[in-house]
Amino acid sequence: MRQIVNSASTAPTVLVVGSGNVAWHLCSAFEKAKLPVVGVANRTVEKLHEFKQHFSIPVFDLKTPPEADIIVLAVSDNSIHLVSEQFINSVSTVVHTSGVFGIKELHTKVKNKGVFYPFQSFTKGNTLDYSSIPLFVESDTAQSKKHLSYLASAFGSAPYCIDAASKKSLHISGVFANNFINKLLQESMHLLEENQIPQEVIWPLVEETIKKAKHIGPAKAQTGPAIRNDQKTINEHLEYLKNQPELQNVYAKLTQLIQEKKS
Amino acid sequence: MRQIVNSASTAPTVLVVGSGNVAWHLCSAFEKAKLPVVGVANRTVEKLHEFKQHFSIPVFDLKTPPEADIIVLAVSDNSIHLVSEQFINSVSTVVHTSGVFGIKELHTKVKNKGVFYPFQSFTKGNTLDYSSIPLFVESDTAQSKKHLSYLASAFGSAPYCIDAASKKSLHISGVFANNFINKLLQESMHLLEENQIPQEVIWPLVEETIKKAKHIGPAKAQTGPAIRNDQKTINEHLEYLKNQPELQNVYAKLTQLIQEKKS
Repeated sequence: MRQIVNSASTAPTVLVVGSGNVAWHLCSAFEKAKLPVVGVANRTVEKLHEFKQHFSIPVFDLKTPPEADIIVLAVSDNSIHLVSEQFINSVSTVVHTSGVFGIKELHTKVKNKGVFYPFQSFTKGNTLDYSSIPLFVESDTAQSKKHLSYLASAFGSAPYCIDAASKKSLHISGVFANNFINKLLQESMHLLEENQIPQEVIWPLVEETIKKAKHIGPAKAQTGPAIRNDQKTINEHLEYLKNQPELQNVYAKLTQLIQEKKS
Repeated sequence: MRQIVNSASTAPTVLVVGSGNVAWHLCSAFEKAKLPVVGVANRTVEKLHEFKQHFSIPVFDLKTPPEADIIVLAVSDNSIHLVSEQFINSVSTVVHTSGVFGIKELHTKVKNKGVFYPFQSFTKGNTLDYSSIPLFVESDTAQSKKHLSYLASAFGSAPYCIDAASKKSLHISGVFANNFINKLLQESMHLLEENQIPQEVIWPLVEETIKKAKHIGPAKAQTGPAIRNDQKTINEHLEYLKNQPELQNVYAKLTQLIQEKKS
């Protein structure tokens, strides 16, 4: 890949690498913001079939990508290092989008490194309000810093600078707020289904739970048998869940967490 | 209390008993629906101060309540039996609103019993769309059945009939969807706060989590290190949480739950 030096008068060009949910939403946000996206590349170009149908962005095999000022690696965490190796002779800014890793995951010989982590759960095809997504960035050179600001502008929001240590806590908080909440929802709906109660009855409660926590804060919004120390109800619930020991265990641990933090 | 027999041509009158969040929202829903609410009564009438300011419903001491066709006990679970004893000589329909108990919690000598359980998390003063709240009812006589339908009409929705066994699973599902999700939110926001990350960054993710689970179902929406069996990231997260053993334990148990149910 030839070295590219971006002149101040021209908008930097962008290449997206990847075929997953993050790559999809980056293409969507960048196209909406009319950023000059020169292409989306993937190791297996066949996987970009949907992208071809949905975006007017050319698709490429990762072996022969077009030149670009900014290369955004929206690939799996385990592939970041390997894919970044392909760009060690480039002056392009090479950015990854992982919530797990920091800037050091990119190959040490990459000249201008960056991390561009949108704190959101992405699904292909879902419509998102990009301007509401918090962005977290890490950069090493003046060029990568400038280029990250440019990418953030496509989302219409100012990015937060974050170091690798804080980013770990951010990622864990995301696991609680997304992965674990989603799992609790699944179990909750499963309990309803087992008893022929229509599963959709859960949504007004869940939506009010979130609204209330947002409005008065979850500490003040806490209700239920655990915070009331209603051991009789807790015991009845644990007894009810005895045939689902993992779920019973989660019930017990979350109850304990509510009670321990209270005292 | 004198026996009241409701004639078909007159709307049944309602007395609300209690001073908490549920009593507040019942008064609000019933007043909006122009139901003839003859009063709200409480053991300590001083606690009804806010009700007097907010509603045009007379307030009473529970020792001297007005007569009513339907008496709704929006009192704590532990007080239902005792308070219902006061109405054993009445033909009024006596209804409680507990998510924990069934119809049997009311005194056996109460002639017309009912349970009217709105599946929602209530906070005084919060505005709610009552028509979206799922209602669960249990009744014993034709009169109590008729009266429960009447109460439900104030919410603008058809109630689900539910027995005590199914109601327990409903209540547990509510604990997961409200109490536990709220606690996870609190922990998630606490992790951010500890690292000087603005807590509000959590909301776009949480709202998308709920939206996605509602849209495609939580089973399909599951993402993250647990479902990916990304043990390296899981270990790093557990290590990060080592100084908060209860939270670390919850992380481990929820991770296990996601992984066990997968295989």
